[in-house]
Amino acid sequence: MSESETTPFDRVALIGIGLICSSMARVIRREGLAHEVVAFSRTEDTRRQAVSLGIVDRVTETAAEAVAGADLVVLGTPVGAYAAVAEAIADHLAAGAIVTDVGSVKGAVIDAVAPRLPGGVHFVPGHPLAGTEHSGPEAGFDTLFEGRWCILTPPEGTDPEAVERVAGLWRRAGSMVDVMDAAHHDLVLAITSHLPHLIAYNIVGTVSDLEDQTKREVIKYAASGFRDFTRIAASDPVMWRDIFMNNREAVLEMLGRFTEDLTRLQRAIRWGEADTLEALFSRTRDIRRQIIAEKQA
Amino acid sequence: MSESETTPFDRVALIGIGLICSSMARVIRREGLAHEVVAFSRTEDTRRQAVSLGIVDRVTETAAEAVAGADLVVLGTPVGAYAAVAEAIADHLAAGAIVTDVGSVKGAVIDAVAPRLPGGVHFVPGHPLAGTEHSGPEAGFDTLFEGRWCILTPPEGTDPEAVERVAGLWRRAGSMVDVMDAAHHDLVLAITSHLPHLIAYNIVGTVSDLEDQTKREVIKYAASGFRDFTRIAASDPVMWRDIFMNNREAVLEMLGRFTEDLTRLQRAIRWGEADTLEALFSRTRDIRRQIIAEKQA
Repeated sequence: MSESETTPFDRVALIGIGLICSSMARVIRREGLAHEVVAFSRTEDTRRQAVSLGIVDRVTETAAEAVAGADLVVLGTPVGAYAAVAEAIADHLAAGAIVTDVGSVKGAVIDAVAPRLPGGVHFVPGHPLAGTEHSGPEAGFDTLFEGRWCILTPPEGTDPEAVERVAGLWRRAGSMVDVMDAAHHDLVLAITSHLPHLIAYNIVGTVSDLEDQTKREVIKYAASGFRDFTRIAASDPVMWRDIFMNNREAVLEMLGRFTEDLTRLQRAIRWGEADTLEALFSRTRDIRRQIIAEKQA
Repeated sequence: MSESETTPFDRVALIGIGLICSSMARVIRREGLAHEVVAFSRTEDTRRQAVSLGIVDRVTETAAEAVAGADLVVLGTPVGAYAAVAEAIADHLAAGAIVTDVGSVKGAVIDAVAPRLPGGVHFVPGHPLAGTEHSGPEAGFDTLFEGRWCILTPPEGTDPEAVERVAGLWRRAGSMVDVMDAAHHDLVLAITSHLPHLIAYNIVGTVSDLEDQTKREVIKYAASGFRDFTRIAASDPVMWRDIFMNNREAVLEMLGRFTEDLTRLQRAIRWGEADTLEALFSRTRDIRRQIIAEKQA
């Protein structure tokens, strides 16, 4: 095996070092995927944590310093910051460097990043379908991506070798990799991830507006159902704000369908249409079975 | 310790032997809470399973046979069957017997059961806040109730000793017991449990209506969020149909609030009001922290 095969990257720059990038840093270390890992965070406390966790070789106070000499750059900030990050790093990227990202939306990310990168730099947008409700570098762990999908959405004309090198990184993290169109990714994720988060945030918000006595009891008796929603609704607020701001059309389309269907259920409850409810509740079990069969449960 | 203290009940009759009652049967056996446990199920297959699991002493083909000579009767069918069950057992209940239940709604249960029971029989409605998405006697386990609340909603004038005997049973199952008004129970559960289930069923239904290609990908890439919803939406269809049919007012009230709030979020997404989203998403984290503090997470 040649050196480039055992150590696929020389220097990896992580722009942002939260749950996802800190998990990636741990994978890179465990698998020996780079000679050096450099991380940027604009927050001093986060930089200090990343160093004291021993998951990166060094941290920088600017994104530009981090990317200097890196052959792989991973954008891991909330997606709303990508345009500014791309501006900041553009003049400092090494020729032939690969820029990838881990953001949950892809169309808006391509619009924000691609036009700002210099020629000769390869952009391979990516989205690992993995995460927890926890944030920050200490929340990461090196098995986060195992058995999960990572979706890459390279724009037309992207160098296939660059795509393959990013795919290889994710496979070493234990993920399965698929390549698809950014718009299609955004539509599928709108319903598998974005809408469920919106709904979870919403119902927990509805509870937090209840009068104090009832709210205290809802918290005390938080049963299966609400409990799960609160876990989802504990996810990073800025990251999720940016997702909804950057996948507006697909989320509104799926939210429209959801609301229509919910209105039908509301009517069935009001008018005592037991059969409508039972038919739906039986149908949904089948989707669960299929997800279990896909080993994503 | 007297015999009645070590073995609080002589004969317990379980009417229905699904997830909850089969878990209770396991607790009764483990803790030695009855000399005999008799179970009724209208399904032959379920009766056979209950016997072969060794969790009950015998099964009966009618509810009337099961309750004969029992000093504790536990109703554990879907709540929509309670009125018919109460009719069927009324003439066969022993004098002084306690009838309790494990249904997820309480006002409608009291209306359906209380008027049908003969004088001298004590009715102590109950609701253990515990469960999984699995159904049937083989899905039960004896630690299901540990650390969870059980809410009792005895109508005014119920014999305090009967309430205490039922409370004692739940404490031996590892639960904490609270007593409250049935209407208040139904309002709190409408938002902690019933509405989350309705929403989960609804979003999984929305997915199952998508065109085949997109649906296949939603299942394939089921991420955190949707995955959790499908688990909730795999719950027993008949049980949940009956819950919505029997807690109509409280569910519609909470659904109304939820929909208003969701419409506000929809507008914020459409008009790009990032601050509205971030403010809500930050607020909801606090509710999660409180639930973790209550050890119900």
